[in-house]
Amino acid sequence: MYDCLIIGGGPAGISAAIYLARKKMSIVLLTTDFSGQTAKSSSIENYLGFSKISGPELSAKFQEHLDSLKIENKIGKVESLEKNDQGFEVKISNGIMQARSVIIASGKMPRKLGVPGEKEFEGKGVSYCAICDGPLFKDKTVVVIGGGNSALDAAVGVEKYAKKVYIVNISPEIQGDEVLREKFSKSAKTESINNAKTTEILGEQFVKGLKYEDQKSKEIKELACDGIFIEIGWTPSTDFLDGKVKLNNLKEIEVDKNNQTDTQGIFAAGDVTNVLYKQIVIAAGEGANAALSTWKYLITQR
Amino acid sequence: MYDCLIIGGGPAGISAAIYLARKKMSIVLLTTDFSGQTAKSSSIENYLGFSKISGPELSAKFQEHLDSLKIENKIGKVESLEKNDQGFEVKISNGIMQARSVIIASGKMPRKLGVPGEKEFEGKGVSYCAICDGPLFKDKTVVVIGGGNSALDAAVGVEKYAKKVYIVNISPEIQGDEVLREKFSKSAKTESINNAKTTEILGEQFVKGLKYEDQKSKEIKELACDGIFIEIGWTPSTDFLDGKVKLNNLKEIEVDKNNQTDTQGIFAAGDVTNVLYKQIVIAAGEGANAALSTWKYLITQR
Repeated sequence: MYDCLIIGGGPAGISAAIYLARKKMSIVLLTTDFSGQTAKSSSIENYLGFSKISGPELSAKFQEHLDSLKIENKIGKVESLEKNDQGFEVKISNGIMQARSVIIASGKMPRKLGVPGEKEFEGKGVSYCAICDGPLFKDKTVVVIGGGNSALDAAVGVEKYAKKVYIVNISPEIQGDEVLREKFSKSAKTESINNAKTTEILGEQFVKGLKYEDQKSKEIKELACDGIFIEIGWTPSTDFLDGKVKLNNLKEIEVDKNNQTDTQGIFAAGDVTNVLYKQIVIAAGEGANAALSTWKYLITQR
Repeated sequence: MYDCLIIGGGPAGISAAIYLARKKMSIVLLTTDFSGQTAKSSSIENYLGFSKISGPELSAKFQEHLDSLKIENKIGKVESLEKNDQGFEVKISNGIMQARSVIIASGKMPRKLGVPGEKEFEGKGVSYCAICDGPLFKDKTVVVIGGGNSALDAAVGVEKYAKKVYIVNISPEIQGDEVLREKFSKSAKTESINNAKTTEILGEQFVKGLKYEDQKSKEIKELACDGIFIEIGWTPSTDFLDGKVKLNNLKEIEVDKNNQTDTQGIFAAGDVTNVLYKQIVIAAGEGANAALSTWKYLITQR
């Protein structure tokens, strides 16, 4: 029986593990891979303390920090989580684990387009994070694929740097907050292509453009660009919870200011929660916060 | 007229500045010194990404990150903050500055004992942060000065490492949560000395002990130790606000999950807020969160 089982090996999970290990709690960190979305960013310039570092490098530093504390970790996918008299029982692909408390930091996955070229050019012009990678496209032509607030947010953010920003949107018009829509259309650099269903991402070493089908004429057209931001939403990794913790309408775990969920003994941190901004430094802070709340919970239970 | 004026040069303020600078907002960071409490920690082992780093070194990395973005900053103490039609007017020791929004990240200062030796041995055995520095006193004798929850928290935290932990408490008994009091008294390594007013901290290169006055007998006694944690509270740096933003009973700024205060256009982050745990990584995350909330506020105002 562990004091705490941490689900997730991104910045939130690792930061939580570091705090609990330093409190001499017996913990185990369970993850399908290390460092989550962090490792997938091409260049990170907004994690305080590192002016500029690649995703894989920062990811390696996080793992090094985890290893320096000799924290037990297991690679495995959580299948289910049950509460019992002693605490919690977590079923993973290759066994069952028990703990007095759980921190869920299982993150989220960007929703994929599912078109040819998408996977091939990820990190080579295809990005799922405009806040992170926008500044890399200074004076370039970029396309944001999507048609809601995230796409507008991304386009307005990237417009500061780019030479030209297209939104390629499958619907007849862009949905989203008026303010963002106004801001988008006010700029001379932006243009939206509606009724456009992206069918392929093109490139050689790096992205060179995309193909889309005009939903009215059914014609296939090409659009040249240097970068593509896919902003069609995220899927929080909460399926295994199966109703055991309160989620919001986006399937994110609802937490309070202390990263406590609605279930005693279960805490959550990072991108899997209802935190508004999905950022590495915010996730790291939340992980620490969840760990200290968990620690308080554990010492009041003994 | 700046888009945003950031008050404070600790991790919260710098992280906020980095996020806003990358959003191409016009900002200025105002501080009395750089990196706040961070620079005062002897060794930091819980800021994700750095397994072990000294306070001054981490502090320098934060400042380097700030400088890499050429963010304007000014050394100066804020005297007052006024709201007007355009936004806010901030009076500093050497001038007046105007901004459309404000992020307050002015931190907190540990309350000092005010006895001889305290200043001299700060960072040489005298610490104001048990969570940060506890693990440095493995198998040593430490004293926690204080008599409330913070002192108990510190003592219980340090007990995991130390050979012996004294609480030296000026009152007839320790106040604080029952759970923490039980946990403290259950350990064979802990002992409390009540009615004891610390009068001097002793040492040579490093702390060697302290002198206290027994409040009953008025006798002066000596207690040998290797480290001293002073846990008599903190003072948030909120005096300059003069009732303009809602504070809690500890004089901390009340913020919601988006780091918004009760005054439109004023955000706050880090140790100056009602966040429960005062930690570098939590402050850095909060700074980013406050910046992104400020950005949303600014783009809806234009």
